Amino acid sequence: MLEVAEIIKRALHEDIGSGDVTTMATVPAGATRRAELVAKEDFTLAGLDVARQVFTTLDPDVAFESLKFDGNKVRRGDVIAWIKADARILLQGERVALNLLQRMSGVATTAACFVAAVAHTDAIIVDTRKTTPGLRVLEKYAVRMGGAHNHRTSLYDGVLIKENHIAAAGGINAAVAGARCSAPHTLKIEVETETIDDVREALDAGADIIMLDNMTLEQMSEAVELIGSKALTEASGGVNLDTVADIAATGVDLISVGALTHSSRAVDISMLFR
Amino acid sequence: MLEVAEIIKRALHEDIGSGDVTTMATVPAGATRRAELVAKEDFTLAGLDVARQVFTTLDPDVAFESLKFDGNKVRRGDVIAWIKADARILLQGERVALNLLQRMSGVATTAACFVAAVAHTDAIIVDTRKTTPGLRVLEKYAVRMGGAHNHRTSLYDGVLIKENHIAAAGGINAAVAGARCSAPHTLKIEVETETIDDVREALDAGADIIMLDNMTLEQMSEAVELIGSKALTEASGGVNLDTVADIAATGVDLISVGALTHSSRAVDISMLFR
Amino acid sequence: MLEVAEIIKRALHEDIGSGDVTTMATVPAGATRRAELVAKEDFTLAGLDVARQVFTTLDPDVAFESLKFDGNKVRRGDVIAWIKADARILLQGERVALNLLQRMSGVATTAACFVAAVAHTDAIIVDTRKTTPGLRVLEKYAVRMGGAHNHRTSLYDGVLIKENHIAAAGGINAAVAGARCSAPHTLKIEVETETIDDVREALDAGADIIMLDNMTLEQMSEAVELIGSKALTEASGGVNLDTVADIAATGVDLISVGALTHSSRAVDISMLFR
Amino acid sequence: MLEVAEIIKRALHEDIGSGDVTTMATVPAGATRRAELVAKEDFTLAGLDVARQVFTTLDPDVAFESLKFDGNKVRRGDVIAWIKADARILLQGERVALNLLQRMSGVATTAACFVAAVAHTDAIIVDTRKTTPGLRVLEKYAVRMGGAHNHRTSLYDGVLIKENHIAAAGGINAAVAGARCSAPHTLKIEVETETIDDVREALDAGADIIMLDNMTLEQMSEAVELIGSKALTEASGGVNLDTVADIAATGVDLISVGALTHSSRAVDISMLFR
Amino acid sequence: MLEVAEIIKRALHEDIGSGDVTTMATVPAGATRRAELVAKEDFTLAGLDVARQVFTTLDPDVAFESLKFDGNKVRRGDVIAWIKADARILLQGERVALNLLQRMSGVATTAACFVAAVAHTDAIIVDTRKTTPGLRVLEKYAVRMGGAHNHRTSLYDGVLIKENHIAAAGGINAAVAGARCSAPHTLKIEVETETIDDVREALDAGADIIMLDNMTLEQMSEAVELIGSKALTEASGGVNLDTVADIAATGVDLISVGALTHSSRAVDISMLFR
Amino acid sequence: MLEVAEIIKRALHEDIGSGDVTTMATVPAGATRRAELVAKEDFTLAGLDVARQVFTTLDPDVAFESLKFDGNKVRRGDVIAWIKADARILLQGERVALNLLQRMSGVATTAACFVAAVAHTDAIIVDTRKTTPGLRVLEKYAVRMGGAHNHRTSLYDGVLIKENHIAAAGGINAAVAGARCSAPHTLKIEVETETIDDVREALDAGADIIMLDNMTLEQMSEAVELIGSKALTEASGGVNLDTVADIAATGVDLISVGALTHSSRAVDISMLFR
Repeated sequence: MLEVAEIIKRALHEDIGSGDVTTMATVPAGATRRAELVAKEDFTLAGLDVARQVFTTLDPDVAFESLKFDGNKVRRGDVIAWIKADARILLQGERVALNLLQRMSGVATTAACFVAAVAHTDAIIVDTRKTTPGLRVLEKYAVRMGGAHNHRTSLYDGVLIKENHIAAAGGINAAVAGARCSAPHTLKIEVETETIDDVREALDAGADIIMLDNMTLEQMSEAVELIGSKALTEASGGVNLDTVADIAATGVDLISVGALTHSSRAVDISMLFR
Repeated sequence: MLEVAEIIKRALHEDIGSGDVTTMATVPAGATRRAELVAKEDFTLAGLDVARQVFTTLDPDVAFESLKFDGNKVRRGDVIAWIKADARILLQGERVALNLLQRMSGVATTAACFVAAVAHTDAIIVDTRKTTPGLRVLEKYAVRMGGAHNHRTSLYDGVLIKENHIAAAGGINAAVAGARCSAPHTLKIEVETETIDDVREALDAGADIIMLDNMTLEQMSEAVELIGSKALTEASGGVNLDTVADIAATGVDLISVGALTHSSRAVDISMLFR
Repeated sequence: MLEVAEIIKRALHEDIGSGDVTTMATVPAGATRRAELVAKEDFTLAGLDVARQVFTTLDPDVAFESLKFDGNKVRRGDVIAWIKADARILLQGERVALNLLQRMSGVATTAACFVAAVAHTDAIIVDTRKTTPGLRVLEKYAVRMGGAHNHRTSLYDGVLIKENHIAAAGGINAAVAGARCSAPHTLKIEVETETIDDVREALDAGADIIMLDNMTLEQMSEAVELIGSKALTEASGGVNLDTVADIAATGVDLISVGALTHSSRAVDISMLFR
Repeated sequence: MLEVAEIIKRALHEDIGSGDVTTMATVPAGATRRAELVAKEDFTLAGLDVARQVFTTLDPDVAFESLKFDGNKVRRGDVIAWIKADARILLQGERVALNLLQRMSGVATTAACFVAAVAHTDAIIVDTRKTTPGLRVLEKYAVRMGGAHNHRTSLYDGVLIKENHIAAAGGINAAVAGARCSAPHTLKIEVETETIDDVREALDAGADIIMLDNMTLEQMSEAVELIGSKALTEASGGVNLDTVADIAATGVDLISVGALTHSSRAVDISMLFR
Repeated sequence: MLEVAEIIKRALHEDIGSGDVTTMATVPAGATRRAELVAKEDFTLAGLDVARQVFTTLDPDVAFESLKFDGNKVRRGDVIAWIKADARILLQGERVALNLLQRMSGVATTAACFVAAVAHTDAIIVDTRKTTPGLRVLEKYAVRMGGAHNHRTSLYDGVLIKENHIAAAGGINAAVAGARCSAPHTLKIEVETETIDDVREALDAGADIIMLDNMTLEQMSEAVELIGSKALTEASGGVNLDTVADIAATGVDLISVGALTHSSRAVDISMLFR
Repeated sequence: MLEVAEIIKRALHEDIGSGDVTTMATVPAGATRRAELVAKEDFTLAGLDVARQVFTTLDPDVAFESLKFDGNKVRRGDVIAWIKADARILLQGERVALNLLQRMSGVATTAACFVAAVAHTDAIIVDTRKTTPGLRVLEKYAVRMGGAHNHRTSLYDGVLIKENHIAAAGGINAAVAGARCSAPHTLKIEVETETIDDVREALDAGADIIMLDNMTLEQMSEAVELIGSKALTEASGGVNLDTVADIAATGVDLISVGALTHSSRAVDISMLFR
């Protein structure tokens, strides 16, 4: 994918810039080495193909064999892949490859935790636009590898009418009507609500999806009952692993979780020369 | 700074792309609004000027007044800045501005915690190259705003001889000699060591900085004593808030912490229309 | 908008490149001139702000006053705007500004013709992805200025399941289920059908929009009746000004017209020095 | 050619962006398919190699065999090329490849019509700078494939002194002298004339090419006779298929036709899976 | 000019990259200073506006006043311009501004020397394509500031048929015929010749310009006489300040000098804080 | 290396742009030719791999065999490499390849002269930031191929405290302290001095490197003695081939020479078809 190639080029430029002075000074050219990517903890894998592409961007002749695959649950000590390349290439690509792989696997692992927490329900975990600037396409992919789903990618592929849009348009009804009139008909219309009254208005306006923002569990249950099958329901706001199962139990269709991408930590992966 | 302008343009392109369909459909052009950036928790601020630049990139005429400044400790409820702009501009820039500001402030806040934990010692907290691909320049800045220091930026502005370089060069001595001969003389030479024997070799080779990698507290103390003022010492490997004070107590000069950048969470900041 | 700025820069680079040898040789620097954009035929205007931006990209101090506005019906002889600038700037920006303005107004004019042809019905005219590579965002805008609507912008903001997707997925039902499971829930699902049987399958699969591709008027009428309010209907395939009214009369909700963008001609506009 | 590669990357980015949600959801990875490009009408082919490059940009391993070649007259029903690739690649590249191929072949076809209309004379049909912004290099190529010739590419590779240059320089003589003095000596000097008096002045000034702009057939004949072999003559202004033969009959050397590029329609080509 | 802005941005990025560590560490923000650009030797000035743009790219509010102008003969000790700006901006822009200004003035000065050497003749000094990759547009401009003229800019704006083209085409006649048939009619056709026989062939073929490559003075005189006013003549090959006057005396119209751009040295200019 | 690929693409775009009109008109497609790069004088080679990459960027299938290698002393008449490629590729890449190779070899040759002049001493020749904008990475490489060393690459990888930094910081001591506090600890701190008093201050402040700027030989000797092994010493300012040996004899460690890059001339290399 062309966007991923751009991300990788930029990351390599950022890290190598005018040159890797240490490697150029200490490692002779032309010495082929073999290295392994090894898991240092348990996690859900995402980004292995991106890691491969980091090395092949530096040298198309690098050999890279995946032993695990994106979406796999990996255990501490597992060898994820091996790479055979000029030692200089290995050393110059290592940090960028790990930075991307560890971050993407971190997102996938967080997503998998949330998915597991609601596995006994029909609720679907979805991400948000609270992603790392410049890496959205990779993080959205990692979310899917963790078993969660994607909300809209960006401002262009979903209508999400929030409080300020409603105020500007002069009410939920006017805002939904405006969106139906001017946005592509291929997009559903989602409305953010904060009270049961808002929910009623959104329903009357014909919203396709109703976001229940920062509601109590009781409000959410009431909203879900009220809405029935007339629209999809999405719980949003301050969702965490302690609360997500209870939220799912209210019967909402979707639960959006900013923490999938804005606060997941990098998992621990090493590149070892063998 | 030109690099920051590029990061912001890319982030805006990623989030807006072919257009913000919701805002275009619901918010009339030409309606000026005022919004505030409000802290939803306590944290150390970093990135406020970047947030400003997000809005001025969309429209040079945006008014933005900072009430807090990078490096400030901010308290829950504090108003950080206010912005006056066309409502469409506010809504289109909101997510990108917050994504950057929350992430940078998260890094600064994590850095400040580590700095506080060793404040009673002379040890200096430094970052690593384990940064978010594409955002290194911003994250390194946030580290400074949190009171910590920067290690080398990238592979081009520091010689750091690691295990694999040593193996390729045929020993610490040869590697240091190679670096002294070929890297710019403006760069110090740092050698990664794992044992006291390594430390001795690095000292003999004339290393300017000696990294003590994954050593026990006892090993570190011994190394610090052995090295004296002949080189700077840097502790590295698995440093966290539970261990950092004990590490500092060994007398090392620098402690490098990957977690500053690879695993800090975004702090909570809202943009409220007033 | 950042994308439009990029399009304009590329166009100016393409036309000026290493320099306008004629103007540099014959026109002294610093001579301010006034020019008018004049309609040489009747048309619907689109792109005037883009034309302005061509000149302000060359020189931010150019004065440009619009006398007509995008979406206006313009008559032969109307002065659309005047520009006051250094004569060199006027001459260097003229061709690029006109090329964009004439093309965009051409698209708007074609769109307005189709819209007028179905004005007595409820049918909505929409565009397609058959746009000029590199100019889609401008052409989609011009379509709206002509009174028509936009279909999905690109492959990322709409699910449109065509014949080959159906074959690959193993049937309409499987394709719709796959899309519902993996595409963002913010996107409606559209299915292309060629027969009444296809329509029935798409309805059963729960398609949100059903495209009636290359059907006869009789088939379309039958499909519309069958579908009722269970899905939106979109007529597609070989629509032209001779057939569009009859198609609209079948009761379809939307009519997509590739010709809006792939075959509209440039309208005639001159820039005259006054 | 590097410029063409850039055009293709931009077009693919524009159409695919953050991803083809339909194909990803419905078409399994790794399924190789064969498709054919089929002419749906008679036309002159241009852009087949560009279409090939669209697919190989997405995947270098795509097999693409041309059965017709740029410049060929193609008949309705002809298979132009076949492509063998992963089905996902075929579906993601289809629209961009067709948009480019149909547009370029449209330009070639229009050019071929004008060339045919003057085939019994010595007049040469040439294009103008009224091309699609961003695609000039492809459209100028298509013009040649249709049997016509190229005028200057852009402002940098030809001196064309128009009315406003003449006014600014203080007369035809001064403008030509200025150009001779400052433009590279590798460029001929062309002067736009509107009257026989202008023609005389241009001749006296030593113009290499004299453009007869919006003249009547009588004026053109008189100008051609007056000029003889002292300069090339170029008819310009409102040339169409109805008038071009008569214009050629006046004996002008060149006839420039903006409509070749600003108003040609896309020809109809389909990509069919077989 | 858009190309110049790109060159400046790239140069600043190259020199500043992740940051000017010295200035950031030692110079407080917000301290306005005044600096002067001072000539340290006699030379012909070129690039002053480019130097200005270096500083205004870093900060649009920089004040820059030119005391000398491009094309001026500058004497040792002359103040060329003064700049008032934040001290950090002055220090960060200094090297890039001087690198460009010194190089461009070096080219202008070399050009002026060659022009002076043939001032008593009608010969015109022209440049070649032997320019610094990436800086051609600036160097060609500097050539003009030195009083010389430009040959074609690049491969796209001049037909220059060399030995290998002739061999490939099957002779001078065929090559000229091919060029006349396929290159834009706005370009003159130049043919490289090495012998008097070549000159005769080129004349017969109708060449507009005949390059006399590496000929003796006698050959050149003979060629000039033979050609008369039938074509322009251009001397080329190993021209230097010792030989250029004799070459001019042969009566050639143009003398192309690669050394103008491939081997001129930077002149000495300092930036002094006052 | 990614940066080199960008330089080459830009250079090819600059020289070829919209197309090589001569070659396209005269040289048939598909004719494979063999050419040799031949030295026309004695020099030190640098940039051969860059020249190869120019051709492989145009066509990955070009065969290129190096007969000499970067760093080699080449004699007049030596064949440096041969290339086998489509004749069109050879002709389109020739000028860019030679422009880069001749310039880089010029720098290497100048560097080798300076190195030879001090070969009987321990002094090391280093470059400066006075490089060609946009080509620094290539010129710094060429310097190494000539046997000299690199000073810092840019403002980001070395602390060099100059007169203006000292003035702004309030003295050498304050400036060094500021740098030690805020610059990465991986960078040595260099201070520019102009008098023996400055040298003493810099020593007291703990500078790692002391630049002796524009000092007399006597001052330099005194400074070297004073400094002993407490810091590296670097002579700077107006160094040329007449003075460099005497400067080296003062015992300085490093001698920086701007002329290596700002004023070296291109060496003479031809590409001959065989």
